[in-house]
Amino acid sequence: MDNQAYLKSKPLTLSGKVGGPFPAKPRSRRQRWEVKPSEMSRNTLNPIRAIVDGMKLIPNPAKPMISLSIGDPTVFGNLPTDAAVLQAMKDAIDSQRFNGYAPSVGYLRSRQAVANFCSRPEAPLEAEDVILTSGCSQAIELSIGVLCNPGDNILVPRPGFSLYKTLAISMGIEVKLYDLLPEKSWEIDLQHLESLVDERTSCLIVTNPSNPCGSVFSREHLQNILTVASKLCVPILADEIYSDMVSSSGPSLASLSSEVPVLACGGLAKRWLVPGWRMGWILIHDRNRVFGSEIRQGLVRLSQRILGACTVVQGALESILNDTPPGFYSSTISCLQSNAEICFSELSAVPGLNPVMPSGAMYLMVGIEMDHFPEFQNDVDFTERLVTEQSVFCLPASAFEYPDFFRIVLTVPEELMLEACGRIREFCRAWYRPPSCDGNDLDQ
Amino acid sequence: MDNQAYLKSKPLTLSGKVGGPFPAKPRSRRQRWEVKPSEMSRNTLNPIRAIVDGMKLIPNPAKPMISLSIGDPTVFGNLPTDAAVLQAMKDAIDSQRFNGYAPSVGYLRSRQAVANFCSRPEAPLEAEDVILTSGCSQAIELSIGVLCNPGDNILVPRPGFSLYKTLAISMGIEVKLYDLLPEKSWEIDLQHLESLVDERTSCLIVTNPSNPCGSVFSREHLQNILTVASKLCVPILADEIYSDMVSSSGPSLASLSSEVPVLACGGLAKRWLVPGWRMGWILIHDRNRVFGSEIRQGLVRLSQRILGACTVVQGALESILNDTPPGFYSSTISCLQSNAEICFSELSAVPGLNPVMPSGAMYLMVGIEMDHFPEFQNDVDFTERLVTEQSVFCLPASAFEYPDFFRIVLTVPEELMLEACGRIREFCRAWYRPPSCDGNDLDQ
Ligand SMILES: Cc1ncc(COP(=O)(O)O)c(C=O)c1O
Ligand SMILES: Cc1ncc(COP(=O)(O)O)c(C=O)c1O
Repeated sequence: MDNQAYLKSKPLTLSGKVGGPFPAKPRSRRQRWEVKPSEMSRNTLNPIRAIVDGMKLIPNPAKPMISLSIGDPTVFGNLPTDAAVLQAMKDAIDSQRFNGYAPSVGYLRSRQAVANFCSRPEAPLEAEDVILTSGCSQAIELSIGVLCNPGDNILVPRPGFSLYKTLAISMGIEVKLYDLLPEKSWEIDLQHLESLVDERTSCLIVTNPSNPCGSVFSREHLQNILTVASKLCVPILADEIYSDMVSSSGPSLASLSSEVPVLACGGLAKRWLVPGWRMGWILIHDRNRVFGSEIRQGLVRLSQRILGACTVVQGALESILNDTPPGFYSSTISCLQSNAEICFSELSAVPGLNPVMPSGAMYLMVGIEMDHFPEFQNDVDFTERLVTEQSVFCLPASAFEYPDFFRIVLTVPEELMLEACGRIREFCRAWYRPPSCDGNDLDQ
Repeated sequence: MDNQAYLKSKPLTLSGKVGGPFPAKPRSRRQRWEVKPSEMSRNTLNPIRAIVDGMKLIPNPAKPMISLSIGDPTVFGNLPTDAAVLQAMKDAIDSQRFNGYAPSVGYLRSRQAVANFCSRPEAPLEAEDVILTSGCSQAIELSIGVLCNPGDNILVPRPGFSLYKTLAISMGIEVKLYDLLPEKSWEIDLQHLESLVDERTSCLIVTNPSNPCGSVFSREHLQNILTVASKLCVPILADEIYSDMVSSSGPSLASLSSEVPVLACGGLAKRWLVPGWRMGWILIHDRNRVFGSEIRQGLVRLSQRILGACTVVQGALESILNDTPPGFYSSTISCLQSNAEICFSELSAVPGLNPVMPSGAMYLMVGIEMDHFPEFQNDVDFTERLVTEQSVFCLPASAFEYPDFFRIVLTVPEELMLEACGRIREFCRAWYRPPSCDGNDLDQ
């Protein structure tokens, strides 16, 4: 292990030594330890954690806990993934062909499989239009990352999935919240959206089907969104992680777009019921070369930072997409649909609550008429006490920038859904105060 | 699907509409499409890709290609991972317990397994000191991300793994390259390192064992590094992805540190020969609470951006770490060691080449005496022609900021190692020009 061979050679000429014969100008240096977390890490805020960690969640010991708060369809065990999905993984492992590095955007063959699976006649996809990522979260991170500079702003739905804001703020990007309208099945308030746009608006995020709303936009509404985006020249990030988790399937944004370029983000997490596997993708739907090769190359470059999805899942992807029996998808959907109907009809009958019927994804939003629950200050207060008394935990919609609502996760076994609704009803009966007539006497 | 229940309720008071009765001040908006990739994506530069993509790599059709360029131990098939590792994965899949979301820092049990595996009496670890990540790359990204702000600078080895610079530049962090000394088995030029430090220096990256050098620092050198870091009050990011891939194992930085806090990054990629699986980790070795809870929390926060490693690999981790037979590790090491000896002795005998004997990792660096190869301008030129004539591809060390060297990957089957060395010798014989005596005549 000596380096004789090296020592024979001339000294390196490329040594980067500074100073030479002259004493280097003294630099100021730290005199003591002072290690502080970066601004970015301090600006990475997870509102769900912030709110939930601040709550006193002590269930009633007399009732077993029912947690309807987490968007993870695997927690109750009633919705296992399909045997074909597991088999595809084991085959990928046995093949030993998927242990090495994949290209940073994913294996060509796996990208091709996603392209084939997601292609529509009106929005065709090639392998090169697909970038595989570590979950839909990384798909969103890279998409925002390629479209936006610090100081730009993005349009984000309210109520909406909190990750958009978490990522944007940490990247120095401003977030403008546009309203969804519960009375219109959570359609976008397009006038409001339009009023927010300025020349630094670099991306419109559309979540369809929606977390937390469970809404699915009609073809007409999607067309209206595209008309606005086209007029304002703002590209769309379509978060379609819940695509096809709907009672009657509708078109995707990209399939209706002739002018507006779309980055559609998706993955295996929800529809295949394996969120832990971290398999996501970006579908690049360019239009009139607005994205051009530059945005594509930007995405490729960003994908090289940490590389993307686990190669075993990549290796299994073709079989997962092609060999999962159709009955698997439909049985998930009918479970969700049936729970949605139960939950909606049960809670519609509860004075003081206003559930909004979903048509997709795996959530249902419930409005709380706070005036009728004078005991509670807000949705956080309300849901906290629901845990204390009834051992039912629903996420307060403040976590989605939408106070006075709460979100119910629909992936539970039916008996638990019924039991939870019964307890919510009992809780509301105990605390509901009918409208007082005091103030209205004179008016009538 | 009507929303009657909702419609009964009072209108929302939280509508974010702007303007009210007054016409909104008209905002300037884009009049035409203009979507440009972000600065961050343009600043994400991969020097390896930049250099390799610019090379004309057309092998000699008469000789089969031998590519010694990629740090992926799986490409030749001679170093499969262990059967126990594959079995652990299949068990994790069959258990169906690892399909849902894990905590963003990883399952507690998997973190505990890493803590147990990596703990040393002088540097003990608890589960809470471990953060699981998507490959060592994400471990590095989060570590730089938590320690550095834009405008800070970090100290990076030259020659060194290119990802540090790729990540830092894209985050607006300045990179200062400190020299490694080939004549001292690639030890750090500590004087040079010290000369680079200023008050914005927020992290010292130490790669040990080293890519691309294959060097392993002695206990004494590690102590000297710690002395300097301690004097300068700069925390260390220890990239230890090749830890224990060494012929005779030495101490880790953290095990010698009493003052300097260390974030040690590692993972399954190299030692377990499964780089595609994207399982990495950060070990938080705090000292005197310099990191304190703030840096820990910062890392936790950053981990929530995209979540970390695939849950299947997380689920298999405990068994992978505990049940892989010791013989598996040692047989990898002896293959590497034997190839290193072959390669070093073969190339030492080649006029114009100066190999540096490695003692760990899976690489060997070779200096080119460019003066003796007047036909070629630099290492890129040299290695390009080596492909054209001999169908052997080695990475020019310009990719590691170190011109006039090239890196050889040692994970090949022995016969290919010998064949490649033979071809390199043939190539050098053809192009080597002995020292001319012209200029020296008068001196002698
Ligand atoms: C709307 C939406 N987008 C993206 C994600 C993240 O998906 P993944 O787990 O694949 O990162 C979620 C997860 O809940 C989601 O609800
Ligand atoms: C020194 C060094 N650190 C980190 C990495 C990245 O490891 P991973 O594949 O686990 O992201 C590599 C990969 O080659 C490396 O050589």
